Amino acid sequence: MTDTASKTHLTRGQVEDLHRWWRAANYLSVGQIYLRDNPLLKEPLAKEHVKKRLLGHWGTTTGLNFIYAHLNRAIVDRDQAMLFVTGPGHGGPANVANAYLEGTYSEIYTRFGDDEASLRELFRQFSYPGGIPSHAAPETPGSISEGGELGYSLAHAFGAAFDNPDLVVACVVGDGEAETGPLSTSWQSTAFLEAARDGAVLPILHLNGYKIANPTVLARRPEDQVRKYFEGLGWAPRFVTVADPSAQPQAHRDFAEALDDCLDAIAAIQTRAREAESAGERPRDSVPEPWPMIVFRSPKGWTGPAVVDGKPVEGTWRAHQVPLNEIHENPEHLAELEAWMRSYRPEELFTHDGARSPELASLAPSGNRRMSATPYANGGRILRDLKLPATDAHMIPVEAPGVVRAGAMTNLGGWMREVIRANPDNFRLFGPDETASNRLQDVYEVTDKVWQERIEDVDEHLARAGRVMEVLSEHLCQGWLEGYLLTGRHGVFTSYEAFVHIVDSMFNQHAKWLKVHRELPWRMPVASLTYLLSSHVWQQDHNGFSHQDPSFIDHVVNKKAEVVRVYLPVDANTLVSTMDHCLRSRDYVNVVVAGKALSLQWFSPAEAELHCARGIGILEFAGNEAPGEEPDVVLGCAGDVPTGEAIAAAQILRRDLPDLKVRVVNAVDLMRLQDEREHPHGLPDREFDALFTKDKPIVFAYHGYPWLIHRLTYRRTNHGNLHVRGYVEEGTTTTPFDMAMLNRIDRFHLAIDVLDRVPGLALRHAGLRQRYMDELAEARSATREFGEDSAEIRDWTLEPR
Amino acid sequence: MTDTASKTHLTRGQVEDLHRWWRAANYLSVGQIYLRDNPLLKEPLAKEHVKKRLLGHWGTTTGLNFIYAHLNRAIVDRDQAMLFVTGPGHGGPANVANAYLEGTYSEIYTRFGDDEASLRELFRQFSYPGGIPSHAAPETPGSISEGGELGYSLAHAFGAAFDNPDLVVACVVGDGEAETGPLSTSWQSTAFLEAARDGAVLPILHLNGYKIANPTVLARRPEDQVRKYFEGLGWAPRFVTVADPSAQPQAHRDFAEALDDCLDAIAAIQTRAREAESAGERPRDSVPEPWPMIVFRSPKGWTGPAVVDGKPVEGTWRAHQVPLNEIHENPEHLAELEAWMRSYRPEELFTHDGARSPELASLAPSGNRRMSATPYANGGRILRDLKLPATDAHMIPVEAPGVVRAGAMTNLGGWMREVIRANPDNFRLFGPDETASNRLQDVYEVTDKVWQERIEDVDEHLARAGRVMEVLSEHLCQGWLEGYLLTGRHGVFTSYEAFVHIVDSMFNQHAKWLKVHRELPWRMPVASLTYLLSSHVWQQDHNGFSHQDPSFIDHVVNKKAEVVRVYLPVDANTLVSTMDHCLRSRDYVNVVVAGKALSLQWFSPAEAELHCARGIGILEFAGNEAPGEEPDVVLGCAGDVPTGEAIAAAQILRRDLPDLKVRVVNAVDLMRLQDEREHPHGLPDREFDALFTKDKPIVFAYHGYPWLIHRLTYRRTNHGNLHVRGYVEEGTTTTPFDMAMLNRIDRFHLAIDVLDRVPGLALRHAGLRQRYMDELAEARSATREFGEDSAEIRDWTLEPR
Repeated sequence: MTDTASKTHLTRGQVEDLHRWWRAANYLSVGQIYLRDNPLLKEPLAKEHVKKRLLGHWGTTTGLNFIYAHLNRAIVDRDQAMLFVTGPGHGGPANVANAYLEGTYSEIYTRFGDDEASLRELFRQFSYPGGIPSHAAPETPGSISEGGELGYSLAHAFGAAFDNPDLVVACVVGDGEAETGPLSTSWQSTAFLEAARDGAVLPILHLNGYKIANPTVLARRPEDQVRKYFEGLGWAPRFVTVADPSAQPQAHRDFAEALDDCLDAIAAIQTRAREAESAGERPRDSVPEPWPMIVFRSPKGWTGPAVVDGKPVEGTWRAHQVPLNEIHENPEHLAELEAWMRSYRPEELFTHDGARSPELASLAPSGNRRMSATPYANGGRILRDLKLPATDAHMIPVEAPGVVRAGAMTNLGGWMREVIRANPDNFRLFGPDETASNRLQDVYEVTDKVWQERIEDVDEHLARAGRVMEVLSEHLCQGWLEGYLLTGRHGVFTSYEAFVHIVDSMFNQHAKWLKVHRELPWRMPVASLTYLLSSHVWQQDHNGFSHQDPSFIDHVVNKKAEVVRVYLPVDANTLVSTMDHCLRSRDYVNVVVAGKALSLQWFSPAEAELHCARGIGILEFAGNEAPGEEPDVVLGCAGDVPTGEAIAAAQILRRDLPDLKVRVVNAVDLMRLQDEREHPHGLPDREFDALFTKDKPIVFAYHGYPWLIHRLTYRRTNHGNLHVRGYVEEGTTTTPFDMAMLNRIDRFHLAIDVLDRVPGLALRHAGLRQRYMDELAEARSATREFGEDSAEIRDWTLEPR
Repeated sequence: MTDTASKTHLTRGQVEDLHRWWRAANYLSVGQIYLRDNPLLKEPLAKEHVKKRLLGHWGTTTGLNFIYAHLNRAIVDRDQAMLFVTGPGHGGPANVANAYLEGTYSEIYTRFGDDEASLRELFRQFSYPGGIPSHAAPETPGSISEGGELGYSLAHAFGAAFDNPDLVVACVVGDGEAETGPLSTSWQSTAFLEAARDGAVLPILHLNGYKIANPTVLARRPEDQVRKYFEGLGWAPRFVTVADPSAQPQAHRDFAEALDDCLDAIAAIQTRAREAESAGERPRDSVPEPWPMIVFRSPKGWTGPAVVDGKPVEGTWRAHQVPLNEIHENPEHLAELEAWMRSYRPEELFTHDGARSPELASLAPSGNRRMSATPYANGGRILRDLKLPATDAHMIPVEAPGVVRAGAMTNLGGWMREVIRANPDNFRLFGPDETASNRLQDVYEVTDKVWQERIEDVDEHLARAGRVMEVLSEHLCQGWLEGYLLTGRHGVFTSYEAFVHIVDSMFNQHAKWLKVHRELPWRMPVASLTYLLSSHVWQQDHNGFSHQDPSFIDHVVNKKAEVVRVYLPVDANTLVSTMDHCLRSRDYVNVVVAGKALSLQWFSPAEAELHCARGIGILEFAGNEAPGEEPDVVLGCAGDVPTGEAIAAAQILRRDLPDLKVRVVNAVDLMRLQDEREHPHGLPDREFDALFTKDKPIVFAYHGYPWLIHRLTYRRTNHGNLHVRGYVEEGTTTTPFDMAMLNRIDRFHLAIDVLDRVPGLALRHAGLRQRYMDELAEARSATREFGEDSAEIRDWTLEPR
């Protein structure tokens, strides 16, 4: 593909069609920003027709409308399935305008029709109290990418393209968002997209030159430099430059040529790859063909006011938001606004009653081919349930608690392998180079890691096709997965617990998306986004302080309760049961935290299923209360390591204080601790009181920062007696047992906490505290002596009941 | 600069010097990973000399040692000030080895000398319980960049180079971390580095080919493609490729040539820019010269075992961590380890007593020129206090509370302008294209935004030099600022409140860095990292749900109390006072949240200073208790919008219930709420009880998620009576008043909360609840009627007492 070899020659009629659509979309966009009445300009524009407060973003909108019109032409010409991803922030007016022109808006929001009143309402609702935001959002038909926080469009586009061989994802990338880290790393996704089985992404970098207040880096670099940048990233950029804003027919011809060339190039790449695939000719040492992309340089706020109050606006940062202001105070501005709007000749675009003119409809694709109506953008419509293997076949026989040792993650790997085997085209595992480090390596028995660059003999489990996506970018993992889920597929993101904070903000935006998505009846449920976090705070060994952070859970539980779920399985069997549950769920974010070290197992398969179904329960094997009896103290626990320590603490107490009635309560579903009014999984107060008593001391060993447990339980009857131990940022490069000890969640500190909290106990057994301190010291020295073997140390005193 | 035009021709002696240093550093690195005894291999290696658990990362270390040796040669040759930033994760053994060889390690950690016992201890402590982590960390002399979480090295390097004209920052970038978003966006920093006044960054991209388990994208792309990528980013890459691992003298010659060429090119660029600057010839339309960089392709684990158990290791991902394992069980491996270690010929490197051989010392720079000892890496050593303008000159006269309107951020802009004027070379303002949007535009009266690309006539406040750094990447803002602070300067990061979560994880790592840094006596205090968050959750107008997130505060308060401070100034004067305090502070992370809308002012300058000094206090003008009297109810508040609503609620209650004694307490320093045992700013219980009473209802209006207030106060006497309102994820595109109402922190809901909580009140005044609901409805309709003017609406019923 070169810049000159195009075969596209638009007829004059085609140019007019494109231009008409563009004018209509621009008109609707300006109307949204400005008007509260007189939507067809049947009367001379008066200030009372104009909103008092003008909010919105004109600058990027006109370029989006231009591109949308051209994509529509290509969709109709080629009967091509296409998804539109809007990268530039605040391009909302464009998405809404085009969806309205395509008829989708009125089909979804049936209070809208095809008449003047609907236009008035379309204009009024925009950026208006109770209305719609000024960027693409879940409310926007055809969107899978929120335009509020920038930088994720291209990763979403790739996620949408994976395993959708017939789809082209047209992704408009703003030159502002192109400066962000997540967008910068997204260009390298070509190394992970397979031409034979995946669809294609067609990025359209929109160089309109400015952000809110500054030029953009890419727009100010010489074209040759920009070309090298993209060629270096595996793309073949095609430049379309609007040198003269008034030469619009030429711009249409140039863009149409470039677009056709790119779509031809995509088809050619796919054909070659698919033929080679069929013929079994996919050399390991090949380099991927460069994928086409468009670099579209057009003036910011194109077709808007060129000059306002003597200052240039079109083509500058001044066009970013509302180019003409103070309409109510400044009659000249009012006149300029009217002239601007009339320049689109609304009378040719809409009938006297406000219906779209028949000529407009000629350009729109029909039915599901409309980008605003494509099922790819409403993934629940095409979601297929996963085929999930039976969990019991992948659980470990556990005849008694605390006897068998296993690695929960290693065991889960076997189950995940079967998930992958049974779902070869709609499930993927995403992670930053850590799938094996997190012990899921069994999946490589049935699949590989996707890789399109050169493969060498020394590589293992690396192939053109596969179900595992590994790239050293949490942003890409998250962005790809979001795009994959929102287009109707399933997946899991595995990460080190501490570093998943890298995508805190992406989680925020996805959780917010889901909250709104759930409120929209036309958005069908999608698979949940499940985080599987391992290599957690208690098992860092040599990694130390920088790798210790359990507060992603804290971050997650701030979001709407109906969207978030948090699970802390305590052994291999509860982990399998939990993951099975998560992969069946819809419209949630699930956070699962599980250790990867070898550790004691507590639950038989049946017990694990039951415990996970309940989410919280008494560990009868660990305590010593008689049935029906109220204990003297409750040891609460959540998380694998704290639970092991709580069980050991109970054992120590039983050894030394056989008359003390100890109950151990474990929460595998953390949200059970919260009030039922606060979270759908919350226990009713009566049940909570039955577990934790109304007045006995509770010593709670928690996986993360201790105050989270207080935050979840502050309304509970017995909160005043709750004492929580957790991670308090102590310890760095040391053994897991030492970590537990430094943060005082180890068995000895817990036992001392019980001594201190059961009335009279410390006094009656004055020697015990010292004994536990001595045993603690002994354990610590044993820790060092044993030479840093974590499993060996952590379990050293533990015997089954 | 071309790949062939070098003038460097190393003598044989120079090659030997370099090689000797490299051998020594490699030997010390292997020793750290493996040995617990016999550090000089005086005896045949036996398994009891080897650690039982082998932890560490060999793969990247040898390349780092190679580069370090070469940088040392150049430093000595040129008497060049240089800072070494270690990008690759887990390169810790290299940093420690080189610091030890330079003598710095023993100078700082005086338990180490220059003898066999010190070597033994150096080896033992590594990745050992209570020892040091396996990556660069605050404990590592010469480091400003933690090697735990990857991707920030290059941004740190640029931050270090700004305003340090004599410094070259050599930044080794791992090809793994090069895949991350933050690193990908960091390459474009050339658009923001000024050759005339800043130092230089010399990136050395280390293509050793593999991450933990995968090849890296850049290493597998053809050289021509990689060249284009970097040329596109504004760099002139110089490739040094080690084709034959055994041809080490040639590798030394090649690297030395490339390094000299790059340093010459840097000097030439700087000379041209500085001469042009002196001559006043800095054209606005010029394109920055490409900066030199090195792409160093060398085998992963170079000089380590080539093959282990028949599988290739050197040059593959198998060299990533510990290349030879099971030393205790496998005598062959033990023998291979010994052969490997002896291949460095330790007897030539160290004396019989374990001292460094005199020949080694010849390569090391001396004193502060040693990269492990440079003051640039211990910025507190060269920190100069800011010259801060008097705050009172920038405060607004406020004769009575609630009369004057002002924009707190706009007003702060004037003070910030003076900060910038008074500190032209050691203070910068960082932000993602939002300085003006956040209303600090007054700073442009004395400075500009830094920009090295083409400048056009339409641009405003854009210049080659300036104090404002704007780029649409929160990652870059944060990374630059961290590098700038850790090398002894000052700065502020301004951002929209919701989107600062983008750098949650970078904050984590910086806070962890500071925690350890504070514990190290040799690390001198540095300026605090201050976040100034505006455009907050309550003032989003058209932006809506995606822009609403107040939980960065929640994230921050999970970190060690001695490191974090959170301030919620309530008006213009308290904001100036707060920022003045923050810019004087050291070794903290300060979070300041302040609105940018026009709003009522409460404090005179003197009152503002006093209130901020106390951090929390009674707003006497708002309540109606008599001095010394205990109130019937306390209205607590924190944050500008909630405080306005709490004051208004108190006014409504006074109007309707003159006998009800209402107290309003505002916390501007949020951590005053916490227990003094939990946070250094925490109020003693006695003082807390005096403010909030021991038994009266407290209705608290808070800026963020309400549970944070519970988490901070759950130990307080009166916590059972505390009722908190805050943001609960309601509302999207709507007016600020509507937002307050939907989340129930508005004056009417607060007044109803008081009715519901003061015993008997609701019963005695049965009509009031309905009245407030009516007034609420009226306010809501007024909100719509007024046409979305936030300030007007929010204050509509408010009159001064």
